[in-house]
Amino acid sequence: MKPVNSEWFTEYCEEGGSAFSLQLKEKLHDETTPYQRIEIYATTHFGNLMVIDGFVMLTARDNFLYHEMMSHPALFTHPQPRRVTIIGGGDCGTLREVLKHPGIGHVVQVEIDERVTRLSEQYFPELCESNRDARVRFDFGDGIRRMKEAGAGSVDVIIVDSTDPIGPAKGLFTEDFYRDCYHALGSDGVLVQQSESPLLHYDSIIRPMHRAMRAAGFSDSISLQFPQPCYPSGWWTATLAGKKSVREFRSGDAGKKPFPTRYYNAAIHQGALAQPEFFLTG
Amino acid sequence: MKPVNSEWFTEYCEEGGSAFSLQLKEKLHDETTPYQRIEIYATTHFGNLMVIDGFVMLTARDNFLYHEMMSHPALFTHPQPRRVTIIGGGDCGTLREVLKHPGIGHVVQVEIDERVTRLSEQYFPELCESNRDARVRFDFGDGIRRMKEAGAGSVDVIIVDSTDPIGPAKGLFTEDFYRDCYHALGSDGVLVQQSESPLLHYDSIIRPMHRAMRAAGFSDSISLQFPQPCYPSGWWTATLAGKKSVREFRSGDAGKKPFPTRYYNAAIHQGALAQPEFFLTG
Repeated sequence: MKPVNSEWFTEYCEEGGSAFSLQLKEKLHDETTPYQRIEIYATTHFGNLMVIDGFVMLTARDNFLYHEMMSHPALFTHPQPRRVTIIGGGDCGTLREVLKHPGIGHVVQVEIDERVTRLSEQYFPELCESNRDARVRFDFGDGIRRMKEAGAGSVDVIIVDSTDPIGPAKGLFTEDFYRDCYHALGSDGVLVQQSESPLLHYDSIIRPMHRAMRAAGFSDSISLQFPQPCYPSGWWTATLAGKKSVREFRSGDAGKKPFPTRYYNAAIHQGALAQPEFFLTG
Repeated sequence: MKPVNSEWFTEYCEEGGSAFSLQLKEKLHDETTPYQRIEIYATTHFGNLMVIDGFVMLTARDNFLYHEMMSHPALFTHPQPRRVTIIGGGDCGTLREVLKHPGIGHVVQVEIDERVTRLSEQYFPELCESNRDARVRFDFGDGIRRMKEAGAGSVDVIIVDSTDPIGPAKGLFTEDFYRDCYHALGSDGVLVQQSESPLLHYDSIIRPMHRAMRAAGFSDSISLQFPQPCYPSGWWTATLAGKKSVREFRSGDAGKKPFPTRYYNAAIHQGALAQPEFFLTG
């Protein structure tokens, strides 16, 4: 029997034999869309919580870590990012961070489930404060298909802000998908994708992802690590792939970024590029 | 009602409104010493688990992160560490890492509860593999008193590898204790102490600790961040204090360290020194 209790939300991580729980004040919403079940809770200490198909998507308290690390490293790696596509990202937290960069000309967000965005507007308004920015186009559709149809060299940065590689997001972790992204990206193009836990998923997800990215044509790829308390193990990665090196970045620009962050800065970016010894020897 | 279940061990974090659980195979040991209750479990995915007074101390699977980050940054910050004192550290994982440094002349480990060490020898033998090293002296006593009695300038590096700042470890987080450490340290002396979670304890523990270290005479202090999945939030710190700067380290020596690690290397050390933006602005 698992420790289920209506006063706590618990996410079980089968591959870790672990679980993470947050104490609840109340359930705010519960809905099954054509794609997934979406639950929203108010927690006692982490603010609002969104759960999709039983997995924690985000909390108001700690999403800044994930959203900043999914956006700023990729954008400060590309020499001059203007055209951004976000695949997934329906909670709009990544979108908000992207739009902080003054050079951005337009962002297309391809989220398959419009309800994720509508519920975020209601329960995470702080993440959606830039949704009416004139540079944004919301495309509620299939990111895999959109990347297949995208024009060659039509995007500078692709951000894959998806759920875990099971269910609808499985196709986002394949060589075919990366090949379509490669084709859609310009010559300085950068792809970044959330890539799970170094402790729990290094062999099962992170290493195969690098192989698939290189096989798809990317000349470089590297996983950046960062803390993410509400995800299994509390330790997460964003993997960058580039047509050129993704180990250097515009550190001068990052050092004088004209917008506030709570975690990211140039030193944190450099630090996140550091590879744990077992990445190098394993 | 909390989600208690005999097939899982759950640690509740009151100040976080969160909980972390590990699935169990069996309970291996349960004992109440004059100081605390010590439980040992076999988990399904994290190897053996030691719990003290209900708090996770370590698991076989992820302790390498904590033990490497509690030892190597401090030792590569001191120019030539020979004399090391460990306060706490009864599981001997930090001790094992310290002894990997060839320059170390002797290590005194001051653990108040001998049973922690005896149980570690039994249930975490891999952490105790250096316990018979001739450079080690085990002193099962009170670390606060030992530091008060220590000779001036008699130690190069002090490692405070303690439980949380409640109960017997509370006195290890005070200006008085840091003053005694300062007195015991040589002119290049470095102190390192485990210092809880950046997300949960920045205002309550980390900032006051820096104030106390500086008030005790240390000219520099900085918190290094690292992942630690089995501790609350999965994100932890080790705080360095020095008579000189603790922001530079022997990176050349760290880069050609003559021993294996699983997490630590020179780039990880540099990366751990990066301060999250909210440390700088908060």
